[in-house]
Amino acid sequence: MNDKIEQLLIRGVVEINIKADLEKKLRFGKKLRIKLGIDPTGSDLHLGHLVALRKLAEFQKLGHQVVLLFGTFTGKIGDPTGKDKMRQPLTDAEINKNMQSYLEQAGKVLDISKTEVVKNGDWLAKMNFEDILKLAGSFTVSQMIQRDMFQERLKNNRDINMVEFFYPLMQGYDSVAIKADVELGGTDQLFNLMAGRKIQEAYGMTPQNIMTMSILEGTSGVEKMSKSLDNYIGVMESSKQIFGKTMSIPDHLMSKYFELLTDLSRHDIDQLLAGHPRDAKLQLAEEITTMLHDEKAAHKAREEFLNVFAQGGLPSDIAEMKLAQGEYPLLDLVIKSELCVSNSEARRKIGEGAVKIDDIKYNQLDEPILINDDPKVLQVGKRKFVKFVAE
Amino acid sequence: MNDKIEQLLIRGVVEINIKADLEKKLRFGKKLRIKLGIDPTGSDLHLGHLVALRKLAEFQKLGHQVVLLFGTFTGKIGDPTGKDKMRQPLTDAEINKNMQSYLEQAGKVLDISKTEVVKNGDWLAKMNFEDILKLAGSFTVSQMIQRDMFQERLKNNRDINMVEFFYPLMQGYDSVAIKADVELGGTDQLFNLMAGRKIQEAYGMTPQNIMTMSILEGTSGVEKMSKSLDNYIGVMESSKQIFGKTMSIPDHLMSKYFELLTDLSRHDIDQLLAGHPRDAKLQLAEEITTMLHDEKAAHKAREEFLNVFAQGGLPSDIAEMKLAQGEYPLLDLVIKSELCVSNSEARRKIGEGAVKIDDIKYNQLDEPILINDDPKVLQVGKRKFVKFVAE
Repeated sequence: MNDKIEQLLIRGVVEINIKADLEKKLRFGKKLRIKLGIDPTGSDLHLGHLVALRKLAEFQKLGHQVVLLFGTFTGKIGDPTGKDKMRQPLTDAEINKNMQSYLEQAGKVLDISKTEVVKNGDWLAKMNFEDILKLAGSFTVSQMIQRDMFQERLKNNRDINMVEFFYPLMQGYDSVAIKADVELGGTDQLFNLMAGRKIQEAYGMTPQNIMTMSILEGTSGVEKMSKSLDNYIGVMESSKQIFGKTMSIPDHLMSKYFELLTDLSRHDIDQLLAGHPRDAKLQLAEEITTMLHDEKAAHKAREEFLNVFAQGGLPSDIAEMKLAQGEYPLLDLVIKSELCVSNSEARRKIGEGAVKIDDIKYNQLDEPILINDDPKVLQVGKRKFVKFVAE
Repeated sequence: MNDKIEQLLIRGVVEINIKADLEKKLRFGKKLRIKLGIDPTGSDLHLGHLVALRKLAEFQKLGHQVVLLFGTFTGKIGDPTGKDKMRQPLTDAEINKNMQSYLEQAGKVLDISKTEVVKNGDWLAKMNFEDILKLAGSFTVSQMIQRDMFQERLKNNRDINMVEFFYPLMQGYDSVAIKADVELGGTDQLFNLMAGRKIQEAYGMTPQNIMTMSILEGTSGVEKMSKSLDNYIGVMESSKQIFGKTMSIPDHLMSKYFELLTDLSRHDIDQLLAGHPRDAKLQLAEEITTMLHDEKAAHKAREEFLNVFAQGGLPSDIAEMKLAQGEYPLLDLVIKSELCVSNSEARRKIGEGAVKIDDIKYNQLDEPILINDDPKVLQVGKRKFVKFVAE
């Protein structure tokens, strides 16, 4: 039990405010209410989102009450965190759709049946002017402007809309409403999380402990995983995609991925990393695929991957395309295959020697290829295939 | 009619935003809604308050609709204008009492039966969070911080509570709620008045015109008239007090008092000022006393004043004090008269030669004075009297 508390306080954690305080509560056996706020402005979860959700699952397994707070009200305003401009507000329908989708995906690591799910519209929408003035009164303007993002904006002569001052106020009040003992968030949420402490105190409550979590880099290895940078591994992707994308991460990220996304002990992780990088990465990919699908699917994805990339074999599910029997110039076939996004990419790929027919490389655009009853496999790059057969 | 519009736009007015615009509306004959906001944190009106009320009366006489807006909601927060700290909030009972008292006093220059009287608690208390965010969204933080008072505070490292940002927002929204065409205020209210324009525009309305009024200096001649500086002439004071206090203002203020507090034309004022200052001031005092009481009371106050101060006569209402028959040292009599605030003031006044018995100056502290059936009038300074008679 004590080991698990230590894990809880360390693994994937950047900072705890106040650590000694939280540790005392945990060791004392107090049942805590653990808050994670979700601004329902998007619905597709990726591995980056799972870092905090897995930490919630750790709390849950130790018997604490996890509270997923959907910012249904704040989502209508848009969190300005890290943005130059305010977000477009969402409609109620969009928010509800995103919530349902989020819960389905979070269910892959969290026991949703034991999770309290709340919406801040349920209390924020009911506040009147006097309530709001009391809330605003817990902050001074200087305290508000200290926020990094606001400082940055003022420095660059970009303005701050008054509405944006409300975001930390509302997020903080949410902690009052749900009586949070602990709030999780990314390091970029530090100001809002601290606002929760301040506002809970102003309302006569014990301030929550704050746990900021590591940021997960995306598959390209440098920037934070995000949908907009297209460096993400999506929670709902196929086992094959998840396995393959995990295999594509740079070696130096393996240690962090193991720590944040698997249950392997530090000792086991270190042993794996001491061996061949490819073996370690296969293990990582299998762990992650198992988490998001199951062992069987993970095993199959691994076999498949090894078949195609390690042994030079073909995947088992190549798409088939029918053509009228006859000879076609190579470029025509590549374009018809739709494996390239444009005609110019098709030309380039052929020029680069990245195009094979039945595992033989061709680099002439007008190379004549005969399509008949005998299937021909066209390969572009390492991972894209189409099988042509005569109609 | 045109002359009256010109008067309206000039007399006592510091600035109009936008003058050409307002003049056009007035000349076009549009019936306008004229707003004056009153923060009901005090109830004693003095001549300084009458400057704006008299301007409202001018609008009223031209057929426009005057709207007195009581900040019953804002009064609970306290307007931070020109204050280093926030005011203490008022109770509902205090606010209601102040409102009643205000209307009674304002009735001396304004026709209250034709005046629309409203309270901003009627709409502000009903706003919800979404309404308030919409309102806040009409301002950026930079625009808010531009306010002189906030700049001053930030410069001096005094903080601004978030609540204080709401005052201009609420005052501005009041102009939306009452559909104000014109708002009057002191020059120190300029930011809040301009907020009204901005917020009306944000709500799709034509922005109100703003009229800032001259600040009236108090009887001591330098600082703004105010109760706390004890340099005021109160609306509810006796005709004698009003007359006497007006006579005590420095000569250089006469022109401004005539302009802001009487209906005399500029031509008549200039003629008066070209004559003897004392005659001009008597006229001024009579005008002001007539406004606050009536012609008869003003005339009596003038007679009285001339009797005491100009002809060296005695006022008709000297307090009588009974003493046992016998001889008293002068100092004892002065102390018993309670015309001095302390024994040491009594000694000083006698030493200065400011003490007379029956119009004869005495400057010995132990001068024996016989009190018998024949009344003796003790005078300290110019205006304080007691009549002693034997019991």
